Parts: sequence; C-alpha cells; structure tokens
Amino acid sequence: MANKKFVYLFGNNKTEGKNSMKDLLGGKGANLAEMANLGIPVPPGFTITTEVCVLYTKNNQYPPGVLDEVNRALQKLEKANNKQFGDPDNPLLLSVRSGAGVSMPGMMDTVLNLGLNDKTVTGLAKKTSNERFAYDSYRRFLTMFSDVVLGIPTENFEKLIEARKEELGVELDTELDTDSLKYLVEKFKSIIKDNTGEEFPQDPRKQLQMAIDAVFNSWNNQRAIKYRRLNNIPDNWGTAVNVQSMVYGNMGEKSGTGVAFTRDPATGEKCFFGEFLTNAQGEDVVAGIRTPQPIEALQDSMPEVYDELVDIYRKLENHFQDMQDIEFTIQEGTLYMLQTRTGKRTAKAALRIAVEMEKEGLIDKETAVSRIEASQIDKVLHPMIDPGAKLDVIATGLPASPGAAVGKVVFTAEDAEEKSKEGKQTILVRTETSPEDIGGMAASEGVLTVRGGMTSHAAVVARGMGKPCVAGCGGITIDIDKKEFTNGNVTVKEGDYVTIDGSTGEVILGEVKLISPELSDELDTILGWADNIRSINVRSNADTPQDAAVAREFGAEGIGLCRTEHMFFGEERIPVVREMIMAESSLERKQALEKLLPMQKEDFTGIFRAMEGYPVTIRLLDPPLHEFLPNHEELTEKLRELKSKGAKQSEIAEVNRLIGGVESLKEVNPMLGHRGCRLGITYPEVYEMQVKAIIEAACDLKKEGVEIVPEIMIPLVSHVNELKVIKETVKSAAQEVMDCNGSTIDYLVGTMIELPRAALTADRIAEEAEFFSFGTNDLTQTTFGFSRDDAGKFLPSYIENNILEQDPFAVLDQEGVGELVKIGIEKGRDTNSKLKIGICGEHGGEPASVKYGHNVGLNYVSCSPFRVPIARLAAAQAVIENKNK
Amino acid sequence: MANKKFVYLFGNNKTEGKNSMKDLLGGKGANLAEMANLGIPVPPGFTITTEVCVLYTKNNQYPPGVLDEVNRALQKLEKANNKQFGDPDNPLLLSVRSGAGVSMPGMMDTVLNLGLNDKTVTGLAKKTSNERFAYDSYRRFLTMFSDVVLGIPTENFEKLIEARKEELGVELDTELDTDSLKYLVEKFKSIIKDNTGEEFPQDPRKQLQMAIDAVFNSWNNQRAIKYRRLNNIPDNWGTAVNVQSMVYGNMGEKSGTGVAFTRDPATGEKCFFGEFLTNAQGEDVVAGIRTPQPIEALQDSMPEVYDELVDIYRKLENHFQDMQDIEFTIQEGTLYMLQTRTGKRTAKAALRIAVEMEKEGLIDKETAVSRIEASQIDKVLHPMIDPGAKLDVIATGLPASPGAAVGKVVFTAEDAEEKSKEGKQTILVRTETSPEDIGGMAASEGVLTVRGGMTSHAAVVARGMGKPCVAGCGGITIDIDKKEFTNGNVTVKEGDYVTIDGSTGEVILGEVKLISPELSDELDTILGWADNIRSINVRSNADTPQDAAVAREFGAEGIGLCRTEHMFFGEERIPVVREMIMAESSLERKQALEKLLPMQKEDFTGIFRAMEGYPVTIRLLDPPLHEFLPNHEELTEKLRELKSKGAKQSEIAEVNRLIGGVESLKEVNPMLGHRGCRLGITYPEVYEMQVKAIIEAACDLKKEGVEIVPEIMIPLVSHVNELKVIKETVKSAAQEVMDCNGSTIDYLVGTMIELPRAALTADRIAEEAEFFSFGTNDLTQTTFGFSRDDAGKFLPSYIENNILEQDPFAVLDQEGVGELVKIGIEKGRDTNSKLKIGICGEHGGEPASVKYGHNVGLNYVSCSPFRVPIARLAAAQAVIENKNK
Repeated sequence: MANKKFVYLFGNNKTEGKNSMKDLLGGKGANLAEMANLGIPVPPGFTITTEVCVLYTKNNQYPPGVLDEVNRALQKLEKANNKQFGDPDNPLLLSVRSGAGVSMPGMMDTVLNLGLNDKTVTGLAKKTSNERFAYDSYRRFLTMFSDVVLGIPTENFEKLIEARKEELGVELDTELDTDSLKYLVEKFKSIIKDNTGEEFPQDPRKQLQMAIDAVFNSWNNQRAIKYRRLNNIPDNWGTAVNVQSMVYGNMGEKSGTGVAFTRDPATGEKCFFGEFLTNAQGEDVVAGIRTPQPIEALQDSMPEVYDELVDIYRKLENHFQDMQDIEFTIQEGTLYMLQTRTGKRTAKAALRIAVEMEKEGLIDKETAVSRIEASQIDKVLHPMIDPGAKLDVIATGLPASPGAAVGKVVFTAEDAEEKSKEGKQTILVRTETSPEDIGGMAASEGVLTVRGGMTSHAAVVARGMGKPCVAGCGGITIDIDKKEFTNGNVTVKEGDYVTIDGSTGEVILGEVKLISPELSDELDTILGWADNIRSINVRSNADTPQDAAVAREFGAEGIGLCRTEHMFFGEERIPVVREMIMAESSLERKQALEKLLPMQKEDFTGIFRAMEGYPVTIRLLDPPLHEFLPNHEELTEKLRELKSKGAKQSEIAEVNRLIGGVESLKEVNPMLGHRGCRLGITYPEVYEMQVKAIIEAACDLKKEGVEIVPEIMIPLVSHVNELKVIKETVKSAAQEVMDCNGSTIDYLVGTMIELPRAALTADRIAEEAEFFSFGTNDLTQTTFGFSRDDAGKFLPSYIENNILEQDPFAVLDQEGVGELVKIGIEKGRDTNSKLKIGICGEHGGEPASVKYGHNVGLNYVSCSPFRVPIARLAAAQAVIENKNK
Repeated sequence: MANKKFVYLFGNNKTEGKNSMKDLLGGKGANLAEMANLGIPVPPGFTITTEVCVLYTKNNQYPPGVLDEVNRALQKLEKANNKQFGDPDNPLLLSVRSGAGVSMPGMMDTVLNLGLNDKTVTGLAKKTSNERFAYDSYRRFLTMFSDVVLGIPTENFEKLIEARKEELGVELDTELDTDSLKYLVEKFKSIIKDNTGEEFPQDPRKQLQMAIDAVFNSWNNQRAIKYRRLNNIPDNWGTAVNVQSMVYGNMGEKSGTGVAFTRDPATGEKCFFGEFLTNAQGEDVVAGIRTPQPIEALQDSMPEVYDELVDIYRKLENHFQDMQDIEFTIQEGTLYMLQTRTGKRTAKAALRIAVEMEKEGLIDKETAVSRIEASQIDKVLHPMIDPGAKLDVIATGLPASPGAAVGKVVFTAEDAEEKSKEGKQTILVRTETSPEDIGGMAASEGVLTVRGGMTSHAAVVARGMGKPCVAGCGGITIDIDKKEFTNGNVTVKEGDYVTIDGSTGEVILGEVKLISPELSDELDTILGWADNIRSINVRSNADTPQDAAVAREFGAEGIGLCRTEHMFFGEERIPVVREMIMAESSLERKQALEKLLPMQKEDFTGIFRAMEGYPVTIRLLDPPLHEFLPNHEELTEKLRELKSKGAKQSEIAEVNRLIGGVESLKEVNPMLGHRGCRLGITYPEVYEMQVKAIIEAACDLKKEGVEIVPEIMIPLVSHVNELKVIKETVKSAAQEVMDCNGSTIDYLVGTMIELPRAALTADRIAEEAEFFSFGTNDLTQTTFGFSRDDAGKFLPSYIENNILEQDPFAVLDQEGVGELVKIGIEKGRDTNSKLKIGICGEHGGEPASVKYGHNVGLNYVSCSPFRVPIARLAAAQAVIENKNK
C-alpha cells in the first residue's frame, strides 16, 4: 500500500495517465489524460485516484503519503503555469472536480477559481489588468465553495445579487460593475461567517484540502447514493478528484465557454451540435442565465477557434469511436478542452448513431450492437411522456410494465369495458387485479394497482398485452364506495384524468402529452445484426393466437410458455370451468371438461398456425382452482342480498353451493398449495382433456400439411415421480387421440423447473423430462421465501437500505436463484447431455438475466412479446461481452 | 444371468444357503438353512430366490432355467424323503411358503399339504395307516389352496364344516369322522368348480407351479404393498419361495405343533414362553379354534421332545444372539423346526432384553443400543391404548403427537379450560388451532383437528406439551353451532367421550382403557449407553421455564430453539402485543414494547436458570404480526353485533380499528410474507426489546453467579445483508444493557437456515453468523413448494400413490431438502471451519433424520422435549451403523 501511486499528472509536457485507466482515474481524469496524450490543449492538472476515495471513505482518513504527493503535484503545476498557489502577485488558481469511473452527471460537485482570497484577488486583477474579472471570479468562488464545501445554499448569495441588480436597474450579471462585485464579495464573506460561525478560509492550501475532502465526502451524499442505486453502480468504486489549472472564459469578448456533441444526441443526426456563451464561465451555460448561442455562431466571431474545435471534435470522435460530449473554454482567443466523454443520447439517437457509424466504417457490427442499452429498447417500443412536460407526480409505485398512458380513472373492470365501448380512454385502478379483470385490463389504456410486485398478476398480464402498468403503489388508498383514491391530501375521483408512466412507476395528475413510439429501420438493422451474433434462441410467452402473432412480429422464434389457464377465463368458458370445479364426481367433471375441449383445441390450432415451423411449449393447468371461482366476500354479500330480497330457494342454494366450493378450496398459502402438477395428479382428467386438445389440434393441422411438434410442459414438479405419473397420463391420452385420427404426432413432454427441489434433483427429473424450462418467478419466490404478492410490504425497504441491490423478481438473483439454475442445468445435462433448457419467467426479457442465461448454457429464453427485441439484443451482447473478456 | 443360481437346497445332508444370505433367500429361507447348518432338525426343502420374484414381477415371466432348477431340486427332495411327488402309493407332500428379506407377518401366504389329490390321498392313508389324517390333510389343502391360489374366501369352506359339525352335534374339528371329511372334500371340490369354472387341479406339478406363482404374485397384493409402505420396505426387494417337505403335527396324540419365544415378548422376562396344540397343524394355533396349552405342558406329555426343544432354543438364541420366535412340529414324537426368526417384542420388552443380554455377556452395549427401535421409545413415554381393548374407530387422521388420551369432546379452548377447572377431562376438537387456543390445549387431554399436517400449529404445540394429537382428520366435519362433529352417519356431540391415539391417528368412540407409561430403569440404562456412544449433542425446543425443566429431565443438553412469540400469547400479554402492533408511530410501539420487556425477561430468566450451564438458543420474533390479532370474520361478526345492539361509538370505533389492522396485515401467502427477520428490519424496535430482555436476564443471573451464554438467533434470513443489518441492532442493544449493568455477557448471534437461498449462500452468511440452525420445517416447505397447512389436500394421495415414500414434514427428505442441508454445512464451514451447526425443525426428533444429521456433520439436533430420548438413541445408532458399514 505504501508504494502505491495516488496522484497522476496530466497536461503540459507530463501526462501519466491514459484512457484505459478509468477505474483508477475516473472517467474525467482518464479522458483529460487521453486528450493531453493526443496533443489536444488541456489546462495542466492532476488526478487523485479513486483508491484514495475508497480508503478515505472506509477509514475516515487519507492513506499515508497522499497529501505529500498532492503537494509535489501542486509544485509541478506552479512550475508549468509559472505561477504560485497563494502568491498575492501572480496566483495560481485551480478547479477541483469529482470524476467517477462512470459518468454521474450532476451527482458530484465542482469548485472553480480555488486559491482566491482577499490578497490573491488583487494579484489576479493586476496580472490580468481586469479588476472586474478578478472580483467576478472571487464572488463566483465564494458561492461555489460555500455551496459545495460549506453546505450553504446558493440562493443565499443569489438573493443578494438580484437585490443589487435591482438597485442598479440592470438585468444581467455581466452588467454588474466592479464596485458591486466588491460589495458582494464582502457580503458573501459575512454570510459565510453567519452560517458557519467561522471566517471564510483565506489560506489557499486549506481551501484545497477542504475542497478535496468535500468531493470525496460527496461520493456518499444522498443524491449520489440514489443515482448509483438507480444505475447499478457499486458503492465501492469511489470517485477520483481532478485538480486543474483554471482557464477563463470570462475575460472578455474573445473569451467564452461552451458544450457540444459530435452528433445530435436527440436524433442521432451526424452534425456538430452545441452551444456557447461569450465572456462566461462553465456554470453560466448550464445555469441558463443568459441564452447561449448555437455553436455555428463561433464560425463568425472566432473562425480560427471554430476550425480548431472542429478538428478536435473529429479527432476525438475518431479516437474514441463514439459520439462525444465535450466542454471547452476560450481564454482570450486560446482554446482549451476541459472535458470529453461519451455523450448521452436518446434511444432513437443511439440506434441511428450505431447504424451510421458502422456504415462509416468507424465501428463494426458487434460494437454497434453492444452500443445499444437493451433496456432502452423499451422506450422506442412504447409511448412515452414528453420529456418537456411538467409533471404533477402524486404517487410512485413499481415500474411494472413500460410505457406511458393517459385516461380517466375507473375502479372496476366492467367500467373500463363500458367506457371503452363508448370510445373513452381509461386507466384501471385496482387494489390488485385477478384473472376476472383481464377484459377490463384489455379495454383500458393502462393499469395502476395498490398491491403486488413486478410479477404480480397485473404486471404479468399488462406486459403480455404491452400495456403500461404501475403496480404496488402502496401510497394510495382506494375507497371503492366513494369511487375515488387518495394519497395524503390528493383525492382523485372516478372520471378524473391521470397519466401513468410504467417505465418509472410515476402516477401523474391530469392529462400529460405523450410521444408515440416510432419503429425505426435502424432498430430492425441492429436486431438483425444481433440475431446473427447471438447463439441462444428467443421465444415468447403467449397465450392466445393474437399474442402469438404479435410475438412473431417482434421476432420470437417460438413460444416458450403458453399458459393454458388464461384460456379458461373467456366469458363463455368460465361457467363451464366452474361446472368442472364444482363437479361432485369424476364423471360430472369429465362432462364439463368435454365442453371445454373444443374451446382449448381452437386456441391451440390458432397458436400453432401463427407459430408454424416454430416450437410451441404448452404448460398444462397451473393455478389453484379457487382462482376460477368468485370471491368469497362478494358471494357472502350476494347471499345476504338474495336473502333480504326474499329470492328463490334455488338461487340461494346455488350461491351457497358456490360458497361451499370456495371454502373447501380455501388455502392458507395458495402459492404453496394444491396447484400445478398436484392438480394433474389428483384430477388427471383435467390434464387428459388438455393433452387431447393439443394433440387433436396438431392432428388437424397435420392434415392441412402443417407440421407442429408440441412441447407439453408439466408445472410445479418437485419430485421425478410426479412427472413420471403425469407422463403416463399424457402419453395415453395422446395415443388415444392419435389412434383415433390414424395419425402420429411427434411431441415432447417436459417440465418447469420452478421449485428448489426440482433444480436440486434435476438429474433424476431429467430421466423423465424431454426438456426443462426454468420458471424463475416461482423459483425466486421459494428460494427467497418471498411471496410476490406480499413482498411489497418489505421489499422496497430492502432496496432502499441496500439489503438487496435489485428487486429479484425483476432482475434474476444470480447468487441464489441463479445458483439453483446452474445446479439444475448441470445435473440435468449430466443425465441427458442434449437436454433442451430454457427460461420462461419474467427474467427471460431482462437484459442482465438474459446474459446470465447465455452464460450458464440455456438454449433459449422466453419473455412477453414486447420484450422479445430486448432479449434478442441482450443475447447478442452476451456473446460480444464474453469475446471481449 | 444365465449362469445365476436360482434355487438353494436345505436340510437332509445338503444345505447350500446360510444366514447371511437373507437378501437372496429371504429371512425364512436363510434361517432354515442356518438351522440345518447348526444340525437342528429341519424338514428338507429348497428356496427359490428373491431375484426370481423381482424378474418375474418385472417381466411377467420366469427367467430361463428357473423351472428346470426347481425340478432338479424336487428330485433331490424325493430322494431325501424316499417318496415320489404325485405317487399314489407313497406321495411326497410339500409346503409352499413365502419369505421376504425382512419378516412380513401375515402379509404373504402359505400352502400346506401340496401334492394331495384324489389318488395320493389314498396313498397317504395307507402309508400312515390313518385315513382320517389323510382326508383331514386333503380338506385343509383344498381350503388353503383355494384361498391363496384361487382367491376363494375361506369362509365358503368353514360354513360347510360348521354345518357338518352341527349335523353331527360335535364342537371341535378333531371330532369330525373320516366320512365327514370325505364328504367335505367332495363338497370343497364342487365349490372350487363353481367359483372358478374349472375342476380342482389334480396334477401335483400344476399345483406346485400355481402355488409358486401365487406366492410371487402376492408380493404385490394390496396388504403387502401397504405393509411395505408403512414399514419403509422397498418394493423391489421381492420375496423368496420356500418349498419344504411336509411334516405332520396332526398325526395323533404324539404329534403336535407350536410357537414359542425364547423370552417373554411382552415383558422381556428371560423365560421360555410359548404354546402348542396336540394333534394339529400350524394354522390351528394361529386360528385360535382350540385353546393351545402353555409350552411347559409339553414337559409332562413329551419330556424328551421338551428337553430337545429347550436345547434348540438355547442354541438358537446363543447363535443369533437375540430373542427368537420359533415354530415347530412334532410328528409322532419326532421334533422338526419349521422356522426361527428374531422375535417381535413390545418396547418395554425390547429394553429389558437388550439390557439383560448385555449383562449376560451375550451382546455388547453397542448392540444393545442398536436393538431398540428409536421410534419405539415414544410408546414407553406416553399412555397407550390397551392392546386388548376393542376399538370403535370412527375416523383416522395424521399421527401428529404420540400417545393416547380419553376425554369428553369440547369445541372451544374456553370450554376446555372451564371443564378442566371443574376437574373434567376433555378432548379439544377444532378445525385448526391458533396460538389463542394454547390455554385450551394445555387444559385438555388431547387435541383433534380437521386441518393441518405434521407440523401444523396443533401438532407442534401438542408435541411440545407431550400431549396426544390427531391432526388433519379431514373425514370429520364440525358443526360449531350445534356443538357436534360428524363422520358419515356417526355424530359425536359435546360431552360425548372419545379416545384419540396420536401414535396411529385413530379417533375412537367412547372411553377406551389406557395403559400408563412406565419409565423403566432399562430405558435409563440404554440411554446412558447411547450418550456414551453418540458424538452429536441433543438439545430441546422449549419456550417456557416449565418446558425447559421437562427437557432437562429427558436429558436435553441445552435449548436449540426457544420461540419467543409463544411468550406473547399469555392472557395479560396479548393486549400489550396488540397495542404494539396497532401502534401508529415508532414511539407508541416502543411504549408498548417497554411493557413487554419485563415479561420476556422473566421468561428468559426462568429458562436460563433451568438450563444452567447449557446453551440456550433464542429465536427472535418470527411469525407474521397478524397471527397476534383476532380473526377477521370474528371481528366482523362482533361489529355487526355491536351495531345491532346500538353499542357506543367508541366501542365500534375500537373494533373498526382492529379490523383495519387485520386488513392492512392481511397477506396472500403469509408463509412467504412479512415475517421473520423481515419484521426485524422494518420494526427494529421489536428485536431491540427482545435482545434487551435476553441480556438483562443474563446480567441479573450473572450477579447471582449463574453464567449463561445466550445464543441469539435470527429467523428467515435469505441474504447475508439481512443478518448484517440486524446484527448491528442486536449488538448495540446488547451493549446498551451491558453498559447499564456495568457487566459483560458473552453471547452469540446466529441464524436459522430455513430458506433455500440461505443454504445456497451459506458461505456468505457464515461471514456474519456465529452459528447456524437448520429450520427444516420451513426449508421443507420452500424446497418442495408445499405449504404445511395446505399439503393435506394432496400429500396423502402422494403417499398412497407412491409418489413420495414418506411425509417430508415427518421424515427429512434427504435427496432434496437434505441436499440443501449438506450444501449449507459445506459452504458454512468453508467460511468458518468451527461453525456450530444444528437442526431445530421437527425432524430433529425423527430417528432417520437424526442419523442423517449425524452423517452430514451437525453438531447437535434439537427437538420437542418428549422426543429427546429418541434423538439420543438415534444419534448413538448412527455412530454404530457407520462403524458396521
């Protein structure tokens, strides 16, 4: 540790860092060094490494040697500039900036003009022959130092400036005269004294030390922590500190400062795009006090500088092979580059830039593909809120299904359907949704629920429909009688407009302007390239022929999960399903099932047709039967009503019978109850019917010449014997249909791996299963012991307190659940090395999880139709990332 | 395969088998061979191996060569007896008996006198000069062959015998004359013709073939399958067939047959114990048609035979070094041994025999310890139903807590408490119990529930109290309004007597005589030996000072699980607990917790005192908070009542407030919800209070000179960060108390491993945990995805259909859950090789699971107090079994 180098010089004629040292020097420091190495003019300075931040944060003191190194670097800076730090005649002034390994805009803090005090300000005035400039710099320094280092809010100072301008009757800061600035400097120092109880530190070295401390401390300020959490940046990366000689854009009309992008960050168009301000320092551009000019204006006012800047930006884009976001300052006609970094861009621009740079030969296809953030794709596929819109956010829930939607609030599925028939757009607001709400969900623009997580019914169904959904918005309370919901003192009544943003989880009062999605050719191009690179298949979860068609459009290569129970909820089907459930004998049950068979068969025929040539995995009935019965409380209410109305005995008896059914099916923990293959074992006739419907559909299509290999999937297997018993049922039902049709259908029988025991005994299960599909939603529930319906009570506080980095229902927990996936794959392939293995939980469309799936050897992922493009891209990026490791 | 030997001779002068070949020859065949080897007179015969059974069952035909081998063996038998099979003048007759690898009494079938037909019967008559004997044998053969081979029930034949005896005016079978027997033989043959449509097979070889087939087929009859299931005998062991020359106990007054034990199987007393019948064949003794004489009577009637028998039984006991159950036949003064096997015995006898044999020097201590079935210990520790009592079993549930109890039926906990005060014994019958019923459970003799499995609330609490419990008795329906329960057409009203047997799950109408448990010195001796042998510790789960004291009496070496929530249910505590839960601020909650602190502290002081010198593991609050609130439906009912009565607004508001609390705590899957350490994270003040109570109790005791090292255990950890956060809370609360007391207490902070993720990431968790305790109840739930409260809907059919061999909540599932335990131990010890690891689920007292725990390297098991002796014994047996491997 003692021999470590903590400080790296850059600029002048000695640059010790380079671009590849981002982890150590931060993005800003590494890029400053790289620019210096390229011969681009950079004010000399030095970078204190991120390691210092880590050690300082951990031990609450600097590692030995750091301060000496800083002093030595400072001496070199004095030499390079031929100025002395703190010299009243010829003072060296510094900027102190943070710079983490990845760009964290606005999160960390900056101090400019450090080194000024009551004496050096006069030196600066003399040296530049510009007293106004010197005091302008001093008052700026006092403000920033107070804000960043001393924690005194800027508004304290701004108020005084405004008051002074009013006194003088002027509008712009630049119109303040030298005396006013001197007056403000004195005032500012008293504010510091009043707020801190101590005089403003006149000693430049003390200023520097305090500024460096402040930057390191700011690594752990709330904003920074929150930004890291949102962007999955580890807390232990730390930030570097860049100490750099000041240059001045505020030394007159031949000075200025600006920011620019090497391509348009909104559209991706190839053009130099930026703006600058004459006679200003950096923060003036950002603050928007004066309106900056477009960068082209520089061509007229300082043509040589403009040409140099164009040369530099081209050099930088060519060197970094990516669109750059640059900052520069012109000091009395001399150009200095203060920063270059990869420019942020919209999803749309990202696609265009990647495709065009490939065409220009600047990057190859793999690089182009790896440039698109998989999660950004969501944004180009769904309507989004106009970035310029002013939002009255009244609550925030989980971002459960991406995109934004506007509509009038309704509180029941029926109302949503009714309004929809009247041509009205609605947002369906429910405590939680159940399968009975599906019609209403389809009829509404978007869904907002109080309870439930990322894999709740509302979330899963909404994603399947490609509809925005905010789930688990625990802050609001619904009063169903009054038909309103409240959050604190905001009350939203039925018929009021709200806007929801399913990408951020925000609920906004009123009708906000939305931007429609544009499906661009560039997206097709990128996804085409991705398809050529990726090695795993991407399938879709789809329950209807319509879903299947959408999935094909998005490029799904088959269906990885067709949930047959969703077919049970049609208006004309649910009464038959209930008949089946309430049957008092196996015979009665079979009679009801016979009525369901042609309906299921019709669905399968449609899906098979839409997926011609691609595999279709059909999961047999999974949820507990009570999900198909009406709610107990509603039934009791109905009974009470019927009785008080003096209804017929037969009507009352029917409701009583239903209540009896609901009660006998009631479970304490339905998620761990009588569902999945357990139903297939206790009621084999249900699975028999489903298998017959599948094989009959395949036989019919075969007669038309359409060949389908159905993959019949058994849910919730925990022991190989369950699969063994059900496989016998499946095989004999299938054989019966094939014999009847005089036909032979190739089909597979496989299983979900969605319980820890299934993964742990996958070697045994693979003796019977012809394929595996990891149901990572359920597997996450049992591995963590988190019910996805109830986790809303503690999961948010887990994320907030950093106990879990991410919601494991959204992003696969690689350490725990992923370990079971790995064990399952290894054991399964031990028994059958050719075993086809996929994943069909919601994680199948989440980029990090798709990459994990690729790495552990899945054959395919399957996700909701609208996430298929994301999965295609992520699968390709996994290949590229492994290559570049 | 072709070279395999399928048939083994024994007796005469050629014996090919021996005792160690039990797997191949079955118990009976191996022991017959062994007796022949010892020079004990055995009628010659041969054994067809169990392998033949396995192959025959699998392929539905005999492996090639078997039948030839049988024929060759038959020829040798003919030679040895100097008789021919089927010879009308001098016929060889045979017995055909099954004999599996372990004794399966009554399960398999026997045919005697095989080889008789219309011709050989006359030969037998001539040869023995005893026509009556010959026809008596023939009619017996026809009956047994019909029963066993042809499936015609014996009663068909018995009816005719009874009719004939009535005609003749006689009482005993032996009083039937030869003509009557001839008449019966003809009648019997017509019955066979009528029932099968075919003549009785006269060909002896055909008879033999059919009998062998029948024995092999009987391996898979329902009785046999059920017995195997109950006794954990694998289906693929198969049975052997023993074909043996007949000897006759029914040849007159110098003939006879008997069974005997080398020690008293009921008490274990060392004395020759048995009975015999003169002039009878074996089944007469068993059938109880004539009353047999005690074995000593033989001393008078056939003193030489008696002396020979005594010699033989001593030889056999010495040879096999265990109590033997023998069968013999005396044919005209000559003694033949037909069978010897290890004798079944009562638990009491098992203990006495083991201890006495050790004292006699026949066996060593390890053998003595391994002779006791750990599960038998339950029987000597609890009252049991008098084996002679006649039982009117009206329903059967799960054997949830062993022992039997008698009492009047009550339907509420309050009634049980009230009756108890009146000195009346009750059985508490509930749909399911909740923590509020604990008082009533304690006041009743035993508990019967309709719902819930082996680890339901009722089961766990009853076992803890050592009270009999039958749980999950789904056959009965409670009508709480009428205060009665029904099962089919049996109705039991409040106040009616019932008896429950918690060891079998039976519910019996009326007051049955019980036998009180006798705690014998032999048990103490055996357990003392076991303690010296075993290498793992045995602790107890105990929640109160009383439980702790009981646990110590049973030899617990500490407490492995003290469930603090059970302390929250006292009459004066529950209102305070509710105050705490309903608190609207952290301050209000702390105020309620302050009231609870002294109560908890008192409990801990008591427990620590009872366990002085032994470790005490205290689990912080685990269940979801709604368990402490009243039931929702009851509250709604109460509200309705209050309103209709026109109660005060404040009363109504209070109930409404409670309803609000219940609703806000409602969960879809509470088992996977807001409980365990999740509560500790969202409400740290609760754990803080508990830790303070623990440490204060320890400080107080320290002042008295009592040193305690409390082990504080955090439940339901899934991620190391949960433990990390809570450990900080624990440490600072503990420090605060220690500072206050100016004292230092050594304590450990550890965690339950009861979620798959905890086991999978045990290496990470061991960075923070100072000990692990596997909570295998919860771990079983999440590993299988089985809710213990709901599994009753499908688990019974799983066991019945052989999908699972055993209820995984009763016997640890070694393949799945056990794999996680292994992973957890390995990973935990990777991080900390000295990590103390135990198990505190119900499996901690189940013998097979205790042995598994020993084998995977646990330091201790912990179980309910009454199972501690079982665990001590099983832990010792694990050591012995490993040594003998």
